[in-house]
Amino acid sequence: MDKLNIDHHISRRFNVELEEIRSRVLAMGGMVETQIRNAITALVDGDTELAEEVIKNDANVNLAEVAIDEECSHIIARRQPAASDLRLIMTVIKTITDLERIGDQAERIARMAKRLAELERPKNQYVEISSLGEHVLKMLQNTLDAFARMDAEAAIEVAKEDKKVDIEYDAVMRQSLTYMLEDTRNITRMLDVMWSARAIERIGDHAKNICEYVIFLVKGKDVRHISIEQVEEELHSDSKKQ
Amino acid sequence: MDKLNIDHHISRRFNVELEEIRSRVLAMGGMVETQIRNAITALVDGDTELAEEVIKNDANVNLAEVAIDEECSHIIARRQPAASDLRLIMTVIKTITDLERIGDQAERIARMAKRLAELERPKNQYVEISSLGEHVLKMLQNTLDAFARMDAEAAIEVAKEDKKVDIEYDAVMRQSLTYMLEDTRNITRMLDVMWSARAIERIGDHAKNICEYVIFLVKGKDVRHISIEQVEEELHSDSKKQ
Repeated sequence: MDKLNIDHHISRRFNVELEEIRSRVLAMGGMVETQIRNAITALVDGDTELAEEVIKNDANVNLAEVAIDEECSHIIARRQPAASDLRLIMTVIKTITDLERIGDQAERIARMAKRLAELERPKNQYVEISSLGEHVLKMLQNTLDAFARMDAEAAIEVAKEDKKVDIEYDAVMRQSLTYMLEDTRNITRMLDVMWSARAIERIGDHAKNICEYVIFLVKGKDVRHISIEQVEEELHSDSKKQ
Repeated sequence: MDKLNIDHHISRRFNVELEEIRSRVLAMGGMVETQIRNAITALVDGDTELAEEVIKNDANVNLAEVAIDEECSHIIARRQPAASDLRLIMTVIKTITDLERIGDQAERIARMAKRLAELERPKNQYVEISSLGEHVLKMLQNTLDAFARMDAEAAIEVAKEDKKVDIEYDAVMRQSLTYMLEDTRNITRMLDVMWSARAIERIGDHAKNICEYVIFLVKGKDVRHISIEQVEEELHSDSKKQ
């Protein structure tokens, strides 16, 4: 497959357009990152106002997705890109879908935050949620970095992190269940904690999806639906062959 | 915007290719439908073997997605379609992503089915799950019909159905919570019921997404992120203007 070669185009204007699209994706990524951070802070601090802000802001994330999506269609229709350029635009279209869904999860966490703010605070101050949230936020930041630099190796590292997030998530779920069994008065609250943990874990899945698009874009291999260890092995055996 | 005009192309071969893509999406849709039906049957009947089959079959759904996705990229690169043809291919790319995620939810339900099969059966035979499942399956079938006929009006009707699914889902969640509070021995089982209900409800969301792509394809209006009532109003006022 042709190598990724976004810096060389017959039309300089086309180059500028592709660069613009990439910046807009990164800006949307930053927006989504802030949404998650605020949603988790709202939950941990019981800050209803901040939660409301996150819920309101989700509309802006949605607008960003629709705008970038339209721009991609325009570029395809106008430039009729082939090979690596087309792959880049396809990657963008898929990436913004996942970013938008991450935004939905942030909104979901904010709604949970509003409900939890009305209940008694637990002794541990929802440390399990803030810790899982930090982990996933770091993962998303590294994902956006890998996207910005079109760095497949970095994307593989981030995708591998998703397993650790899943393990941490399982631990949160088990702990929450214990609290429920201990005292039925905990059930309602722990359900909201579980839903929030689930939403955060889903964000990790979406980040992993984006990493897989980056790997596909750079390496020209579709790595969805095969294990990351397998991807790593295949890509490295390829580079040895070259 | 240009009208949808998939029957008239300069190249007859291109017509055939687009028709093929549409049939493959419908075949994938049928595959996913079977996966959901089997997953829910496995849960309701406590059929571990059937659940295992669903889990194993998810790989085929994933393969279908990757294959159709590649075919779409090839068509864009080869045919350089503009306007309505490009929109059709974009719709397909988005639709198969949602179908693949519906497949993931079916697998998730099957995993829950395996766990529930080891527990004591409840008196109501999980009627809440089978009823919610039937509702969502009907919604998915109508979605695929609307896609097959490129019928925006039908797509609007299906998208509206998602609200009813959400209401039914809320009722299941409230009922499950009551059982938990009644007797802590119900907690583990009811959690699995809740996760399954949640997975089914998510399938409804994905079906709604596909309906929105169909509306966009036919009407040329991006209707994501606005309410279906608003969409209906706008589209009807448009046709009056014409």
